[in-house]
Amino acid sequence: MSKQQQMDTIQAMVKDIKYTMMTTRTSENHLHSCPMNTTETSIGAKEIWFIGHSPCETIDNIKNDPQVNLAYVSQDNKQYLSITGKAELVDDKDKLDELWSMTYNAYFEKGKEDPNVQLIKVVPHGAEYWANGNAITSAVKLTAAAVTDNAIEKSLGENFSIELS
Amino acid sequence: MSKQQQMDTIQAMVKDIKYTMMTTRTSENHLHSCPMNTTETSIGAKEIWFIGHSPCETIDNIKNDPQVNLAYVSQDNKQYLSITGKAELVDDKDKLDELWSMTYNAYFEKGKEDPNVQLIKVVPHGAEYWANGNAITSAVKLTAAAVTDNAIEKSLGENFSIELS
Repeated sequence: MSKQQQMDTIQAMVKDIKYTMMTTRTSENHLHSCPMNTTETSIGAKEIWFIGHSPCETIDNIKNDPQVNLAYVSQDNKQYLSITGKAELVDDKDKLDELWSMTYNAYFEKGKEDPNVQLIKVVPHGAEYWANGNAITSAVKLTAAAVTDNAIEKSLGENFSIELS
Repeated sequence: MSKQQQMDTIQAMVKDIKYTMMTTRTSENHLHSCPMNTTETSIGAKEIWFIGHSPCETIDNIKNDPQVNLAYVSQDNKQYLSITGKAELVDDKDKLDELWSMTYNAYFEKGKEDPNVQLIKVVPHGAEYWANGNAITSAVKLTAAAVTDNAIEKSLGENFSIELS
């Protein structure tokens, strides 16, 4: 699989899955995750956007340490994706206008103008992907530098890692 | 929901879901996750066991920082669970005998005796659970101290947090 195909695989998977589990580090150095609806993804542009509802633990944790993990599991439990990245709390009315949809009105009393609305942008460092044939294996990880169409994959399923920034 | 019912809910959910996404912290302070098959869970005994295959990034990360997050997503995408805990790399032949099954022979050339076998125990600090009615909300979190059968839940779905140690 070429690097472009890998990026397309990741993009398609993130687009299809409604909620990621976003892991952040707490002020006690514990790791906490919570389900977050992915609003917009562009792996090519290295941006994944969320609309968060403050106050909440995830937003507090990002202020403490911006490093996050986004875990995606496909509906059929056959594909697994880990995106490692850095989160940023963004204040950008134009971007919010672009991302907003009627669905979000259910979560925010004052809609887009609600002071609890918090845009979150994640810039991915890299990703790792597993596809389960009969079983998940701890298969060989292929870094971006090592990926060629002929790369040998030692696994019962498929596994690749990719650097994105 | 009583504290016991919450623990039963968590136990049942972990038992039903084949793979968790286990997040660990890398030596570069990034957060990486990978799918891990949960071998045995006892929320009451505060132990969740995995059989890992070394060498691998997750095991290296645990040596660097033992704090982990276990994220579970139900098959129907309606239940989400975050378990915050501390991982331990365990060398215990009796426990390995107890946990081993024929399934693992597919992953380890020398079976149970394989030097790459690595038992991992996670002791949970706490957990947070979300059930999706029509939508996931950032609903009120109920700590163990505040949980009663009459606790008011402000959400379109259900959400609770529980301390386990």
